Amino acid sequence: MTEMMEKNSFQELVIPTYEDVLAAHSRIEPHIHRTPVLTSEYMNQLTGAELFFKCENLQKAGAFKVRGASNAVFGLTEKRASSGVATHSSGNHGLCLSYAAGRRGIPVSVVVPRSAPEAKKQAMRGYGATVVECEPSTSSREEVFAEVVAQSGADFVHPYNDPRVIAGQATCSKELLEQVVELDAVVAPIGGGGMVSGTCLTLHNLAPKTKIFAAEPEQADDACRSFKAGYIIADDAPVTVADGLKVPLKELTWHFVRNHVSDILLASEKEIVDAMFLIWQRMKIVMEPSSAVTLATIIKNKEHFAGQRVGVIITGGNVDLGKLPWLV
Amino acid sequence: MTEMMEKNSFQELVIPTYEDVLAAHSRIEPHIHRTPVLTSEYMNQLTGAELFFKCENLQKAGAFKVRGASNAVFGLTEKRASSGVATHSSGNHGLCLSYAAGRRGIPVSVVVPRSAPEAKKQAMRGYGATVVECEPSTSSREEVFAEVVAQSGADFVHPYNDPRVIAGQATCSKELLEQVVELDAVVAPIGGGGMVSGTCLTLHNLAPKTKIFAAEPEQADDACRSFKAGYIIADDAPVTVADGLKVPLKELTWHFVRNHVSDILLASEKEIVDAMFLIWQRMKIVMEPSSAVTLATIIKNKEHFAGQRVGVIITGGNVDLGKLPWLV
Repeated sequence: MTEMMEKNSFQELVIPTYEDVLAAHSRIEPHIHRTPVLTSEYMNQLTGAELFFKCENLQKAGAFKVRGASNAVFGLTEKRASSGVATHSSGNHGLCLSYAAGRRGIPVSVVVPRSAPEAKKQAMRGYGATVVECEPSTSSREEVFAEVVAQSGADFVHPYNDPRVIAGQATCSKELLEQVVELDAVVAPIGGGGMVSGTCLTLHNLAPKTKIFAAEPEQADDACRSFKAGYIIADDAPVTVADGLKVPLKELTWHFVRNHVSDILLASEKEIVDAMFLIWQRMKIVMEPSSAVTLATIIKNKEHFAGQRVGVIITGGNVDLGKLPWLV
Repeated sequence: MTEMMEKNSFQELVIPTYEDVLAAHSRIEPHIHRTPVLTSEYMNQLTGAELFFKCENLQKAGAFKVRGASNAVFGLTEKRASSGVATHSSGNHGLCLSYAAGRRGIPVSVVVPRSAPEAKKQAMRGYGATVVECEPSTSSREEVFAEVVAQSGADFVHPYNDPRVIAGQATCSKELLEQVVELDAVVAPIGGGGMVSGTCLTLHNLAPKTKIFAAEPEQADDACRSFKAGYIIADDAPVTVADGLKVPLKELTWHFVRNHVSDILLASEKEIVDAMFLIWQRMKIVMEPSSAVTLATIIKNKEHFAGQRVGVIITGGNVDLGKLPWLV
């Protein structure tokens, strides 16, 4: 593992405000689902808390990331939009940016490692994306991506370290607060920190007493170690079933995590798969391992949440139905 | 296959009315979820129709049958309730009656074939049921069940041929009409006909122009043959992946099917599994093969539904996650 200090970044941070969230919501509302909040007596009895599951797995393109991607895409001027957008992602952000760009009818390029699942690439192409393959290394990705942007003049929409993206993700908690009153806490999974940052942005403004917990795999615990150390720590290539949570914090998400998160809770691989199975079995929804880390940490830390009303963000549902982790 | 004419049944039928549906809804509302209606652009493009999926897989106990079961259980007088309820079912009705009785705190016995999955029996016991095993034959089931009722004095709640149950199931379409306006058609799967009868009861009263289609597996097409013949035809032991749809129509459900259903559409086993996979993959919900027959018939009969607003009832989500039909 490599550790990277980014305390002294000289780049000026543009911190999104709650006004940006309001603008984002009215901008993206025609293009997203207002996802339902589900409850389960079984889960309440199991945890001793009252849980409210915000189901972004039922979101367009199967993930909350369509909120941030749509905010970036639909916020571009006509002129800027005509050159299209680009990103690097083998996961939900690439898919969601493709969806949003396809919906606006502008070009979109996604740089994807050659080794990524063919199904994901097909799905991106299905929304109209140009998929550009790179080798599965950071250097190749950066090189290929720079070339794509240089050639197209496309606007780079980072998966999470982008104020437009964070303002978009923040609309998820805004809806949650409209759907459920008086939450004591909200728990969201943390990878790069886009969803957690959006949650902080909304709750800090609308419900400052509601605590925010981030949930992370033990085997990709860089955010937790960053939180304790007081500066960003990035791991090179963590291995976890929660494959949406492998990426490190960046300056902008670190700003929100450092200032507004109460704690970062960890779960083992087995605890994550067990929680995922339980959600599928009892709540009848298809969701990703990354989304199960939240319930896994709540089960593991019952005493923190007992008797409380807790929002739980189910972040996505894009999973290979032929390779379920409890069947291997 | 055996054919059975029941045209001249002398038993007097008690046909539930829409007033019964209203009473049922206020009776059961504290005990059920108001399930969400989901939409999918992908499914709309695929079918050429505008589909509104009423998700009873997200219902308490994982199935719409909790509506009818709760209406029967909570409609009993204190005195009648004290002797408990009983039924025979290896499927969702047994589970849902157990849930409802457990919630009211009254005894419930469910007669289940010895060969039924252990997980289902465990789930019934989890809600507080006494599970009584019989041999997997109609004669054994009837004998054992008669004994249970004689000993306990329990009230028999039939899985579908019961006006209280049909009035309960009818609350599903009542909610759907509150959630979605101006439906041209509603498609529901048909086995014994409880859900279809409830749908007829509500739509005939609230939206008489909305057409009602029943969807049935080709390999268990007794309702379709009954519909064409003009009398009830019952098959002995049909074999289909849609295991909730194997049971035959009875007098009460036949009344509704005969009078209010526009057509009964069929789908093959492969079409059912393909539609099930598509719903899991694109809509991110866990649902049963029985619930996929609707979409399978819509895909197969696109010309019937093109340009129309169509309600689709997803009836349940109780499926063995270790034995998914596309993995065998």
